[in-house]
Amino acid sequence: MSEIKIDYPNFGFEVTHRDEKSNARIGVITTPHGTIETPNYIFCGTKASVKNLSPYQMKEAQTDIILANTYHLMIQPGADIIEKMGGLHKFMNWDKPMLTDSGGFQVFSMGHGTCADEIKGRSTGTKKESLLKITEDGAEFRSYADGRKLMLNPETSMKLQRQLGADLIMQMDECTAYQVTRDYTAKSMEMSMRWGDRSLLAFDKDHDGTQGLYGIIQGGIYHDLRKISAEYVAERPFFGTAVGGCLGGSDEEMYGILESIQAINHPNRPIHFLGIGRIKDVFQSVRHGIDTFDCVMPTRIARHGMALMKGVPNERINLVNSRYKDDPTPLDEAMELPCSTEYSKAYIHHLLKAKEMLGYQIVSQHNVAVINQLMREVRAAIRAGTLDALEKEWLVD
Amino acid sequence: MSEIKIDYPNFGFEVTHRDEKSNARIGVITTPHGTIETPNYIFCGTKASVKNLSPYQMKEAQTDIILANTYHLMIQPGADIIEKMGGLHKFMNWDKPMLTDSGGFQVFSMGHGTCADEIKGRSTGTKKESLLKITEDGAEFRSYADGRKLMLNPETSMKLQRQLGADLIMQMDECTAYQVTRDYTAKSMEMSMRWGDRSLLAFDKDHDGTQGLYGIIQGGIYHDLRKISAEYVAERPFFGTAVGGCLGGSDEEMYGILESIQAINHPNRPIHFLGIGRIKDVFQSVRHGIDTFDCVMPTRIARHGMALMKGVPNERINLVNSRYKDDPTPLDEAMELPCSTEYSKAYIHHLLKAKEMLGYQIVSQHNVAVINQLMREVRAAIRAGTLDALEKEWLVD
Repeated sequence: MSEIKIDYPNFGFEVTHRDEKSNARIGVITTPHGTIETPNYIFCGTKASVKNLSPYQMKEAQTDIILANTYHLMIQPGADIIEKMGGLHKFMNWDKPMLTDSGGFQVFSMGHGTCADEIKGRSTGTKKESLLKITEDGAEFRSYADGRKLMLNPETSMKLQRQLGADLIMQMDECTAYQVTRDYTAKSMEMSMRWGDRSLLAFDKDHDGTQGLYGIIQGGIYHDLRKISAEYVAERPFFGTAVGGCLGGSDEEMYGILESIQAINHPNRPIHFLGIGRIKDVFQSVRHGIDTFDCVMPTRIARHGMALMKGVPNERINLVNSRYKDDPTPLDEAMELPCSTEYSKAYIHHLLKAKEMLGYQIVSQHNVAVINQLMREVRAAIRAGTLDALEKEWLVD
Repeated sequence: MSEIKIDYPNFGFEVTHRDEKSNARIGVITTPHGTIETPNYIFCGTKASVKNLSPYQMKEAQTDIILANTYHLMIQPGADIIEKMGGLHKFMNWDKPMLTDSGGFQVFSMGHGTCADEIKGRSTGTKKESLLKITEDGAEFRSYADGRKLMLNPETSMKLQRQLGADLIMQMDECTAYQVTRDYTAKSMEMSMRWGDRSLLAFDKDHDGTQGLYGIIQGGIYHDLRKISAEYVAERPFFGTAVGGCLGGSDEEMYGILESIQAINHPNRPIHFLGIGRIKDVFQSVRHGIDTFDCVMPTRIARHGMALMKGVPNERINLVNSRYKDDPTPLDEAMELPCSTEYSKAYIHHLLKAKEMLGYQIVSQHNVAVINQLMREVRAAIRAGTLDALEKEWLVD
């Protein structure tokens, strides 16, 4: 595979500043749809829509980049349709950078519970009902929409992601669950490396400079396996590095893994942390050199009435709590966003109790804006050498 | 009751133009929160929120006036809380004119099916499960939220509506169902007249010039009863006239009733048609002198994927239909609203199929904007004497 050479002429990653006390860094990722400053957060527009929010509302919340899930889109409406409609950007009216995943993660985690359960090692005890089989070729599964059999492998994943047309795309990999053995994890990781090579070949065949491909580091909770996988990704002509799969059940395990691959990762490539994104994770991960995150958390917790907030216990307040039923104060006066400053907590509490969609819309936009505010402050703090102080402002017991 | 005299110093209604061919008229209603031109459409913000839309989005759709339902708000969050939060306008962030109903309609129709079923005389065969009893005093019912017994009568309705603080408010009346006898309808109408007097007395006691009270014409499908009720409302010191209750199962019955009360209605008061508002109803009703409408239709049909449209059969297109799955054209290029012009039908179709909330948000805002566009065009056509021609543009077979 080392004979393949892939250029990414319309892409770039430049580190503009390094923290003195940690591996945190400021950088700029260039894509055909503009640049983003890193560290940055990639919001999940799962089925070509960030839940409850329009592109206009995402921009009002100062969002730089979003992602969509290949797995969901291949099922509904189908990548053919999105390609015919001019690609994802045009389809969903988003003209800034975008990322898609390979589709693999959802194929493998279907039946395992949520994304977060999977990555954080919480078993939900359910079965992989839709996954039919995993072979060297790829994964066969049933569409949850109409029951038809579908195949996802490196070649189909690259084709689908090309049809979707996001700027940043992901190699096909197997995402192993927490409960699998070391032996399974090792074999799976080796297959993911072979799938990485097939992804590169398939990508190179149609590469026209509009997309940048990320390799994915697997290896579960085993540091030696992670190192092998990290070496593989660093040696291959990927544009970016992603860290995927299960990183253990505790923060210590998770950051231990990031530490063990730190020196191996390609120094001139952006590093994406797949599916991780609580506020505390952001602070820890940027210190380990992570440049971008994605997680459904900001919009998912909004649908349960949870508003992200700087300097409160557990990063959030629960607006469904009856203490807010006659609270006339705005959601968050410190924000520069109408939905955070113009509605009282009492009103939002009422909307949530009444299950009015506007309540989810308000809290979702607020949460996205809070995360974007966090990322701006994190970048400024890295620049100023004040990350520890900023963390104390955001995270309290 | 003729001894009561009520002034509405901050309110006004002026007819500025009359159609030569029908009883259609252009007018201006003045309220403490500004003026609205009539004929106009009052959108339902049932539980202090127009479903899926923020006040900002309502204004972007050029909305002049909205309503909220006293029945829902007395149950959740309670009128006390809304009063404490500064009243409905402040609570929900709406600074233009607002209307509330008496609460009676929902008490009586609970269990009968939807508002539309009730008014249009479609029986759904279910029981009045939450309504406990109707007496001369008022209606006793159970809260759907927590099962506690509640009483709505003219005095509590006036108090609740005062606490909510909308500009235009409604007397307490009994809204009879389609299937009741003439005898029941007559007795009920007489009671509604007595309730009207009690509403006026209770209103007058705390009247501070911030609200204008409407009397409601009842009498079911019986022209002679409607005339008695219309005379009652015209003689009493109400600010406005409303037409409520069941008007029959056909358009002929409905407009026959409007015709029979036409000459009786007070000539200098705005006339509101309760719960009626398809596009074809608007054209017919304005010819019978109706000044304002309200109906949940625009936002309710949006939640079923129906987009209102000028000049298409049945006033709407069904975006869930698979014919739109790869239609790259915007929802409606003729509209001056980003959500109507910037998303393709294919994208909205996808959102609706995937049950993404953004789909309902887009179609809801579009439908509100179409109705506001309709009302602007209706006013212009009355002024120009071209209402018949405009109707042919909007309504096709």
